[in-house]
Amino acid sequence: MIVVQKYGGTSVETPEKMLKVAQRISKSQDMGNHVAVVVSAMGKTTNYLTDLLYKVNPHPEPREYDAMLSTGEQISTALLASALSMLGKRAVSLTGFQAGIDTDSNHARAKLKRIYRGKILSIMDEGKIPVIAGFQGMSPSGEITTLGRGGSDTTAVAVAYALDADMCEIYTDVDGVYAADPRYVSNPKHIEKISYDEMIEMAAHGAKVLHLRSVELARRYKVPLIVKHAHVDGKETRIEEMDKMEEPLVRALSVDENIAKIVVEGVPDKPGIAAKIFEKIARQHIPLDMIVQSMHKDRKNDVAFTVASHDLRETLEIMRETQKDVEAENVHYDDTLAKVSIVGVNILGSSEIIYNMFNTIASTGANIDMISSSNSRVSCIIPKTHIKQVAQSLAQKFNLIE
Amino acid sequence: MIVVQKYGGTSVETPEKMLKVAQRISKSQDMGNHVAVVVSAMGKTTNYLTDLLYKVNPHPEPREYDAMLSTGEQISTALLASALSMLGKRAVSLTGFQAGIDTDSNHARAKLKRIYRGKILSIMDEGKIPVIAGFQGMSPSGEITTLGRGGSDTTAVAVAYALDADMCEIYTDVDGVYAADPRYVSNPKHIEKISYDEMIEMAAHGAKVLHLRSVELARRYKVPLIVKHAHVDGKETRIEEMDKMEEPLVRALSVDENIAKIVVEGVPDKPGIAAKIFEKIARQHIPLDMIVQSMHKDRKNDVAFTVASHDLRETLEIMRETQKDVEAENVHYDDTLAKVSIVGVNILGSSEIIYNMFNTIASTGANIDMISSSNSRVSCIIPKTHIKQVAQSLAQKFNLIE
Repeated sequence: MIVVQKYGGTSVETPEKMLKVAQRISKSQDMGNHVAVVVSAMGKTTNYLTDLLYKVNPHPEPREYDAMLSTGEQISTALLASALSMLGKRAVSLTGFQAGIDTDSNHARAKLKRIYRGKILSIMDEGKIPVIAGFQGMSPSGEITTLGRGGSDTTAVAVAYALDADMCEIYTDVDGVYAADPRYVSNPKHIEKISYDEMIEMAAHGAKVLHLRSVELARRYKVPLIVKHAHVDGKETRIEEMDKMEEPLVRALSVDENIAKIVVEGVPDKPGIAAKIFEKIARQHIPLDMIVQSMHKDRKNDVAFTVASHDLRETLEIMRETQKDVEAENVHYDDTLAKVSIVGVNILGSSEIIYNMFNTIASTGANIDMISSSNSRVSCIIPKTHIKQVAQSLAQKFNLIE
Repeated sequence: MIVVQKYGGTSVETPEKMLKVAQRISKSQDMGNHVAVVVSAMGKTTNYLTDLLYKVNPHPEPREYDAMLSTGEQISTALLASALSMLGKRAVSLTGFQAGIDTDSNHARAKLKRIYRGKILSIMDEGKIPVIAGFQGMSPSGEITTLGRGGSDTTAVAVAYALDADMCEIYTDVDGVYAADPRYVSNPKHIEKISYDEMIEMAAHGAKVLHLRSVELARRYKVPLIVKHAHVDGKETRIEEMDKMEEPLVRALSVDENIAKIVVEGVPDKPGIAAKIFEKIARQHIPLDMIVQSMHKDRKNDVAFTVASHDLRETLEIMRETQKDVEAENVHYDDTLAKVSIVGVNILGSSEIIYNMFNTIASTGANIDMISSSNSRVSCIIPKTHIKQVAQSLAQKFNLIE
């Protein structure tokens, strides 16, 4: 079996953990697997490197930011390859460039374009284990690029696809995916299997275990994923295409407190105004989440939308510049809100589930500020103050507790 | 003027020093120079990286050692390029590979083969400052290599040659070359100008300021060198071809305490024996310094030679394996010795200088254990216990004190 194993930063944060990870890789090869490994920077290395860089220049060129940060994964690969050779295995570290990982030229948030798998394959053909730096690649002009958040997971999925691997194993500091975040819901159920669609909704709306990009990539190329604990054997979660369509069922709940709402008040109800409002935001690549428009009697609209908390300041600046152009009366924001989402294939089709969600939230006394949904998810914006109570009540209602 | 500036590890060991170095580079560009920069890893980074690696594997593959260590210089280049952009300069960091630095495949002690200067030149043509990682390159098969000790100086000289630079400036933590090491001689003279040959002899016999390889390369390609303090303006030393042949004159004195003597006793006086003794040592690339053979009356020889202290253990192992082959009666070693050398063009031709050297050493009561010489150097092996007294007396005798 061809297996790609990916190890996150906390899994390799010390030389001791590095050696344990090497044992796990070694064991997989001994079982007859052809293993390729993708590894993140050790523990806090990335923070250390960015802090150091900001001390020299608070606004470094993205190109230099990437050159700096990519060393974190390079160190991990050399260490892990050396740990493997301690165990008598033959291993070869590869930078993104050496592994043939091509990206576009968008520094600090590059997109994977292609993996030239020749080098990785030739190493594996010799019975050696390639240890590939996650999170990084090389642009067409030979610059070092990084993939942005969640980059190492994405590298792993892309390598698994390039190698036509049977499995992409994501090793992390939790033993898989749970039906809710234990910070909000006590004793949530462990999920053994989940569909790509459900995992994508969870990742997009607050779940941290896998990054959205990597799951989207896995879905597109049908790469089967397993999430496991790097140092504790036991439970795991498989993420794969689900064959049989089951009854709509709430599989999981996610919470996202890092959101902020912006309201553009009193916009004339004319064609093209909404486009104007969002034009500059789109140009700055700020991801929007919910958008709600409500009409007044006086033919004026209020437009409200949410963004990630860390994008609030920039978005506000843009909106204040735009205010005149769109003839808005006022722009204000609210950062006291949180988002709670329930996830499950086709749940939007079940009016019973929707009713139960709204009713449960109402029973806690929380106001629902905004609602959005997809085929497999319903999200409500509620006050942060109520988020724990709401999450716990919803988890009970939908049987997400062990 | 085209100038290559090289900054050593202590010159860039903190973000503050990094910014100061950036100011110096910036100033040189403002004066109209076309500047390319070569930089070492910050302060103790290389030690930190090797320690980390040895915790995982005390005997790492040289390939992984290089992959690991090369990150140190890569971090420096990204930081220095970012520091330059803080000052409004445009700068581009380059790894050894990106800079087109080709080496052979000898990991951890690779030799430079060629620099493809296209990338560096095109950056300079745009008015930008290339900041090149010292000490590293890429092998023909695309592996990351490091050049071994003194590698960054060597990179700087090679880049200066490739760019046909007018000057290669080596910035370090001393303000040039002195006629003797102040740890041995109090208040030695500062040297303003010195020939390649003299600098090579000094570097080869204990002086630390420049590494032998870099001066040899500079001599071969006639690259003018300047050694300066990175953070203090003032004195400097120029190393260049000396036109006029002067009277033989002792220019400097160097001391090397990191030596050890090995004696192979009672070797039959037969052809080919010496070759056998040194065959394995040569194969292990252990550099020999002095070799002395003395004949007994019974047609047996003693062969004595010196190696660097850090090569003693390996050399002894080899000699003990070889002892039988060469029919030697005994192999023993002495690590209580030191080497003192006087340096100056053509001094071997002056019997007065030679007489003064031996006489001065004798006057301190020190025994001379071995003697070796080149055209521009005479070295004596004496007991470590006498080294300071001998160095001070020789410095006085030859007028090397301020």
